[in-house]
Amino acid sequence: MKLGILGYGNLARGVEVSSIGEDDIEISAVFTRRNPEKIKTLSAPVYHEKEVGRFVGKLDCLLICRGSATDLPRDTPRYSELFDTVDTYDNHTDIERHIERVGTAVGKRGGISVVSVGWDPGFLSLMRLYFTAFSKGRINTFWGEGISQGHTQALYSIEGLSRAVQYTLPKPEALSLARAGEILSNTDRHKRRCYIVPKKNTPEERERIEKEIRSLENYFSGYDTEVIFINEEEFEREHTGLYHRGRVISRSDTGLYREHPLTCTLDLEIGSNPEFTASIMLASARALYRMKKEGRVGVYTLFDLPPSYLLPLGKKGIDLL
Amino acid sequence: MKLGILGYGNLARGVEVSSIGEDDIEISAVFTRRNPEKIKTLSAPVYHEKEVGRFVGKLDCLLICRGSATDLPRDTPRYSELFDTVDTYDNHTDIERHIERVGTAVGKRGGISVVSVGWDPGFLSLMRLYFTAFSKGRINTFWGEGISQGHTQALYSIEGLSRAVQYTLPKPEALSLARAGEILSNTDRHKRRCYIVPKKNTPEERERIEKEIRSLENYFSGYDTEVIFINEEEFEREHTGLYHRGRVISRSDTGLYREHPLTCTLDLEIGSNPEFTASIMLASARALYRMKKEGRVGVYTLFDLPPSYLLPLGKKGIDLL
Repeated sequence: MKLGILGYGNLARGVEVSSIGEDDIEISAVFTRRNPEKIKTLSAPVYHEKEVGRFVGKLDCLLICRGSATDLPRDTPRYSELFDTVDTYDNHTDIERHIERVGTAVGKRGGISVVSVGWDPGFLSLMRLYFTAFSKGRINTFWGEGISQGHTQALYSIEGLSRAVQYTLPKPEALSLARAGEILSNTDRHKRRCYIVPKKNTPEERERIEKEIRSLENYFSGYDTEVIFINEEEFEREHTGLYHRGRVISRSDTGLYREHPLTCTLDLEIGSNPEFTASIMLASARALYRMKKEGRVGVYTLFDLPPSYLLPLGKKGIDLL
Repeated sequence: MKLGILGYGNLARGVEVSSIGEDDIEISAVFTRRNPEKIKTLSAPVYHEKEVGRFVGKLDCLLICRGSATDLPRDTPRYSELFDTVDTYDNHTDIERHIERVGTAVGKRGGISVVSVGWDPGFLSLMRLYFTAFSKGRINTFWGEGISQGHTQALYSIEGLSRAVQYTLPKPEALSLARAGEILSNTDRHKRRCYIVPKKNTPEERERIEKEIRSLENYFSGYDTEVIFINEEEFEREHTGLYHRGRVISRSDTGLYREHPLTCTLDLEIGSNPEFTASIMLASARALYRMKKEGRVGVYTLFDLPPSYLLPLGKKGIDLL
């Protein structure tokens, strides 16, 4: 399977690292909008994005390794007109429209695309589905402790920040309530902790920044939010990790009198968020490859893929039954 | 969707209970080898197994709710010649041959069957597959604490037992080793605890029974086994529960230098083993129904079913992404 990678950030690097030793995968090209000579990959050849046209018909799949906020809504449809694609579009409320946009693009050439893969949306979505299908569970999803990219970006919309990072954390009492079957809101489930290096470290500045953070609509307003000011050295030493965690807790009660509790939990403790996401992208590319061989066209999510299609090519997984 | 049920034990009863309030499901018939008048269902009509022929062409699926040890290897192929079927065949090392046997039966009429569903094989198998596909995890499966049917049956092969039950339990230290990525044998992972009501409660009898249990090949020999003698009352009060538990723990290490640990855990805490299994059978019947509408024929496991096919008919699950 010959793969291309669009973009070369943490995620793309994760794809390259994950593909080492995978006999069925070759990374044929990395495409960048930066100067290709400035990009140091492990071994994959780097081309400027403008040269992507030369690779049409030569790649089994293009992995779109860019950001969900502005890149993917534009790039996945654009490149799906030329290649079969996999992306990690993670704006939950917009996935249906994303599928439509990409669908129009692949429709033009009878292509195929798998969108919104990763661990959430992705693996945790699968668990929400299985817990629903197998047990009609009352389901809560918990993120963290780990860094939220979107919220960290939101922090930078505030003036006077030298460095900033936002951690999402489950509230411990919410984990217990989820096990008891309460359906909780996002604000009930999570708290937010911000580490800030202010440009000017004065009491007035700290007060202003903290106030502006707490009132950021859709991000911090209404949340249990902690704001902690630190210096550059501490930031560099403590807050550049890529770890994260995701949990889905489902509770149902089976039996004629709902007398038998059933609690299902998936817990992902993730050392490197981009590397895990990358490895799920590779599995999805394998499924796409198999779907294509079957003559399938269109846009799919992990919900549509027979699980065995995600295994390395040539494997069926009977030993895992 | 019109379903039939073959057999009427705990599992079949679980199917009937789970189907209450499910608008897309009707239990049209229960078939028994006992006297139908002696079977009290919730509401489904009961027929003798001999009458099953009258229902050919009238059921969307027949759920085979009988035991794996001797019934399913005979009954699933036999009834797959007449109906599309779902079963829970759980003899891991024989599943491939079971698929072949059922395949021959459905092949004769272009039918379809989903075999070996439940929580293990089934849900835990899915997790082993996803953990493998998404992270090349080193995987251990833990059962219990819960009653093992097979081992309980094995106990009854010994003379002089009035009542007997066997619990499988994970060894706590094995759970830690699994998180650290060690691959453990079944004997390393589990211990076995037997509660026995002897017919004659003498020291000699207890000694003989315990010795025979400990030397039962393939069941207890080589295992960390505890044998506890109790009386009838305690047995009835404490050891007729249907709870169980299943865990899959996967550990991998991502990154160029394998420097990022990734630990994935699924934990199922099951109040009623047969009711949960039944509910997974129903989901599988829905997937079978959708596969059939697509014109698919043959024998499938959960590995082959697009996850969204398991949802109630008419649902696609976009909200769960």
